[in-house]
Amino acid sequence: MKPMSEAAQTLDGWYALHDFRSIDWSAWRSSSAEERRAAEAELQAAIRGWKATEAEKQGSTAIYSVVGQKADFVIMHLRETLEELNELETAFNKTSFSSFTYPAYSYVSVVELSNYMGQSGGDPMENPEIVARLKPQLPEAKHICFYPMNKRREGSDNWYMLSMEERRGMMRSHGMIGRQYAGKVKQIITGSVGFDDWEWGVTLFADDPLQFKKLVYEMRFDEVSARFGEFGEFFVGNLLTEEKWKRMLSL
Amino acid sequence: MKPMSEAAQTLDGWYALHDFRSIDWSAWRSSSAEERRAAEAELQAAIRGWKATEAEKQGSTAIYSVVGQKADFVIMHLRETLEELNELETAFNKTSFSSFTYPAYSYVSVVELSNYMGQSGGDPMENPEIVARLKPQLPEAKHICFYPMNKRREGSDNWYMLSMEERRGMMRSHGMIGRQYAGKVKQIITGSVGFDDWEWGVTLFADDPLQFKKLVYEMRFDEVSARFGEFGEFFVGNLLTEEKWKRMLSL
Amino acid sequence: MKPMSEAAQTLDGWYALHDFRSIDWSAWRSSSAEERRAAEAELQAAIRGWKATEAEKQGSTAIYSVVGQKADFVIMHLRETLEELNELETAFNKTSFSSFTYPAYSYVSVVELSNYMGQSGGDPMENPEIVARLKPQLPEAKHICFYPMNKRREGSDNWYMLSMEERRGMMRSHGMIGRQYAGKVKQIITGSVGFDDWEWGVTLFADDPLQFKKLVYEMRFDEVSARFGEFGEFFVGNLLTEEKWKRMLSL
Amino acid sequence: MKPMSEAAQTLDGWYALHDFRSIDWSAWRSSSAEERRAAEAELQAAIRGWKATEAEKQGSTAIYSVVGQKADFVIMHLRETLEELNELETAFNKTSFSSFTYPAYSYVSVVELSNYMGQSGGDPMENPEIVARLKPQLPEAKHICFYPMNKRREGSDNWYMLSMEERRGMMRSHGMIGRQYAGKVKQIITGSVGFDDWEWGVTLFADDPLQFKKLVYEMRFDEVSARFGEFGEFFVGNLLTEEKWKRMLSL
Amino acid sequence: MKPMSEAAQTLDGWYALHDFRSIDWSAWRSSSAEERRAAEAELQAAIRGWKATEAEKQGSTAIYSVVGQKADFVIMHLRETLEELNELETAFNKTSFSSFTYPAYSYVSVVELSNYMGQSGGDPMENPEIVARLKPQLPEAKHICFYPMNKRREGSDNWYMLSMEERRGMMRSHGMIGRQYAGKVKQIITGSVGFDDWEWGVTLFADDPLQFKKLVYEMRFDEVSARFGEFGEFFVGNLLTEEKWKRMLSL
Repeated sequence: MKPMSEAAQTLDGWYALHDFRSIDWSAWRSSSAEERRAAEAELQAAIRGWKATEAEKQGSTAIYSVVGQKADFVIMHLRETLEELNELETAFNKTSFSSFTYPAYSYVSVVELSNYMGQSGGDPMENPEIVARLKPQLPEAKHICFYPMNKRREGSDNWYMLSMEERRGMMRSHGMIGRQYAGKVKQIITGSVGFDDWEWGVTLFADDPLQFKKLVYEMRFDEVSARFGEFGEFFVGNLLTEEKWKRMLSL
Repeated sequence: MKPMSEAAQTLDGWYALHDFRSIDWSAWRSSSAEERRAAEAELQAAIRGWKATEAEKQGSTAIYSVVGQKADFVIMHLRETLEELNELETAFNKTSFSSFTYPAYSYVSVVELSNYMGQSGGDPMENPEIVARLKPQLPEAKHICFYPMNKRREGSDNWYMLSMEERRGMMRSHGMIGRQYAGKVKQIITGSVGFDDWEWGVTLFADDPLQFKKLVYEMRFDEVSARFGEFGEFFVGNLLTEEKWKRMLSL
Repeated sequence: MKPMSEAAQTLDGWYALHDFRSIDWSAWRSSSAEERRAAEAELQAAIRGWKATEAEKQGSTAIYSVVGQKADFVIMHLRETLEELNELETAFNKTSFSSFTYPAYSYVSVVELSNYMGQSGGDPMENPEIVARLKPQLPEAKHICFYPMNKRREGSDNWYMLSMEERRGMMRSHGMIGRQYAGKVKQIITGSVGFDDWEWGVTLFADDPLQFKKLVYEMRFDEVSARFGEFGEFFVGNLLTEEKWKRMLSL
Repeated sequence: MKPMSEAAQTLDGWYALHDFRSIDWSAWRSSSAEERRAAEAELQAAIRGWKATEAEKQGSTAIYSVVGQKADFVIMHLRETLEELNELETAFNKTSFSSFTYPAYSYVSVVELSNYMGQSGGDPMENPEIVARLKPQLPEAKHICFYPMNKRREGSDNWYMLSMEERRGMMRSHGMIGRQYAGKVKQIITGSVGFDDWEWGVTLFADDPLQFKKLVYEMRFDEVSARFGEFGEFFVGNLLTEEKWKRMLSL
Repeated sequence: MKPMSEAAQTLDGWYALHDFRSIDWSAWRSSSAEERRAAEAELQAAIRGWKATEAEKQGSTAIYSVVGQKADFVIMHLRETLEELNELETAFNKTSFSSFTYPAYSYVSVVELSNYMGQSGGDPMENPEIVARLKPQLPEAKHICFYPMNKRREGSDNWYMLSMEERRGMMRSHGMIGRQYAGKVKQIITGSVGFDDWEWGVTLFADDPLQFKKLVYEMRFDEVSARFGEFGEFFVGNLLTEEKWKRMLSL
């Protein structure tokens, strides 16, 4: 048994729900203009509610359309508790707009800072910079990228059998690549061990989507990804402003 | 052939059915208030029946909403026989409430105490503490976590080719991690060899869902998980009280 | 090339179709009492036909309800030819009862005795004991367990690269575990190489379902399973008598 | 880089489409006798067309019912071009019979003779025996078996890293097993590299379906299958004559 | 950490969306001639729009029917931005023709030239030949082949742990095979790291579809594919001209 300090110390912030949904375009087309107006009004009311929560610093919500057939849009919610996330889901499911959509994928996790970077002494939750990273306002970047991942546990490539020192060394190198993209890509790591099917979720925001490719590709040559990274599905999308919602839904 | 005593001795208690279901929100929204009232009444009658069984110590039932799109809620039943579990399923399928739901996932297993911990002499089923663990009243913790798992059988990481001594040593270390979460996380292990697609189900209960993440993450660095653990889907949820059912289903 | 005698000698009996189906409970609930009566009558007529075939020793059929969401029931047919199995399927698909069900899983195989146990001289098909095992009347045990399996072919764990002697030694040890369950578990092995996605199907019958768990778990520590067994989905169920069908289908 | 001659020389004949479809029995049962008559007439007209093509030696078509839930029937077409296969699909999709079916599985490939057997000099397409194997009339055997397969590329079991000599040696041994089934099993190999998800399709025809099992099982002990064979889904079926179509579709 | 120059330098051009869709033939057959006329008119209007974009060198679009059940057709769009691809999807989803189709598969990527081939000095985006390869007009070849792929990262076959020199050597050999197909197969590589589930998409165009098989099969013996190539689904199709659309959709 490794000493606990080697394994399990993370700082955890807001819970996250990535809610990917598709639009039933046939149903949308065959509905009346009045039904569509009502559905859009309920959608906009929901969005206003999420923005009010954000204004009160009680959470944050980002909305992006998704490119390709995997989904039509994703709503990413950050909230203080799992109960709030559950209530947001249920409230959305009760809107008339929701009747024109169907679930495509979802992910449950919690914003996390790892214990590899070394924290200064004192209670980190008193450190405003750390709190800001654990309870972040999601950026309004032009593009989003989301994927879940594991650390591999196979034969001689078993992350969880490495010493803390080995892991810390590799994570440092990994972090340095990330730092080269500062100002270009904003990265939010969420932990999902015990919550969803992979160990982490990675959400990236950028104004230039090529930066997603450059960052993920460059990291793939880094030992920690090359030997130990296992990746799930990748989603990429475009910021969905009120104006863009209107254009998307207008017939 | 290993001596049987090395392999197959477990203590087995109540059979378990984890029944994950999703709500057809479009159907729910388009039904009449009267239909919804009738459906909710049938649901509440079913829940009252389950509680009566629990009061008579003939089984136990826990109900949680599920976060994310995997399901809307899970009903976890413990009963003396597989027949009773089957009857509970069928009875639920016949309710009008059930017509507004569809199956999402299920798991069939039996509450199990492993043979690694070493039991004192005498008939364990005469030991009230052991019986209480084999036929437990499910807690009303605020949160639930469920996942199925296997022990790996791959190349040099083959759990079932290890000696009893090696396995017992690793399971002891594993158990000690679990013990550090006493009072924070209640863990129920159910065996499913011969019953469902994985070898075990793990059901965790906690008031603070972060404890799920801390426990599962810490255990992942333990050799028995790091080298031998294979994990299925993870589900996380919130206690679904009568009051919360009402709120969830009200339009 | 290994000599043919090392590889391919099995004795083969009746063909088997495991037909798992789910009930469309919403459709069942919303049908009229008359429709349901007619559907049940057609189901009972089909069952009577299967029993008549069994009485004439032309095949055998077992029916069990299935626990959990994987299916509501399984019909396991044994018949002399693949054509008969196909006709049974088609006949069932034409019943009005079938309209209230949908397919869940199926498996096509043939009852098989392996060449590892060593047969005495003479034409085995003249040996009544062997014929009885190849063309068995399915027992009316209280419970059924079904799962398909492969022998592994990976790196140093490649069953098909072992010598006949090595394989026979391991299969003997394996068979001895099975023999310890004589009287508790009845086991029917069906071969499906060339017929379905796994190499064998295993169907177990027992009055105490815990015996399924004990048998499969104990065997998993045996080298032939530990190193070479690959397993598909597991299904477990309860005997579905005429009385139980009635209770299951009554609203 | 290996010399091209070592790798890529095959002889290719007719393109193949295996089109597995299921029948929507509920829809069939609830349609009128007139609708069913019309649907069957369109089906029979399509079949007559395929037979005419076969009579003109412009292709070949085999039709079999499929045992189990994977599909109800398979239509295997051989034609000179991919365009013709595409047109056959589209024409079938436009029949009223097709409205009572839904797609279950399909496979796109081309009849292939490998370069391992050694061809005599001269243009092989002038050799009538070779042409007959590349553009075969499909037999009317009582049974069909179909499965797709790959050659493995994993660690030390990497087919594509072997020398031509090693591969040829193993393929020879493999071919000798096949030859022992001459007269019992007719085998058509189709290549699907670049066309579908596996590298080859294997279609077997036999009057006794046990010969499928014996052949595939015996080959599995041969090194080329034991170490290098990866197999997809297996389908087995019965010849679907005009008479059998009628019986299958009559209510 | 490898120097960045070893890992992440690619030239990136137009974004690509491969949009595979199936036709709901039952719905198409049961619609009125007028509805079908309107749907086809909307489809043709969309196609005219895509051609206009191509004429203005602002993108390119290729349309092919797909052989087998995986899809009925694929629309491959190249555009300057992800937003444009998203708008094309949405616009198509709003057509009445789209109501007769459903999504089958999609892929999001960007046209890419790798850094293995060695570029001459100067800004490559000023080199008209390179720009033409990054922003290509898609050919009107008779056939298309599409598949996604990864470079393997497993045990001793880990592409991302190789040195730049080793990778360059293998990619050179790989490229030389491709060059032997010049004039027969046109190949467009698109990168999808960070955008979709595999690392690259490969789109091939040829007048003779056998060239797809020959090229992919020959490459499979090349070390870079044999040891490091992992492949997803393969799709093959036929050019869908206006005339062929008409024939396909006429009843």
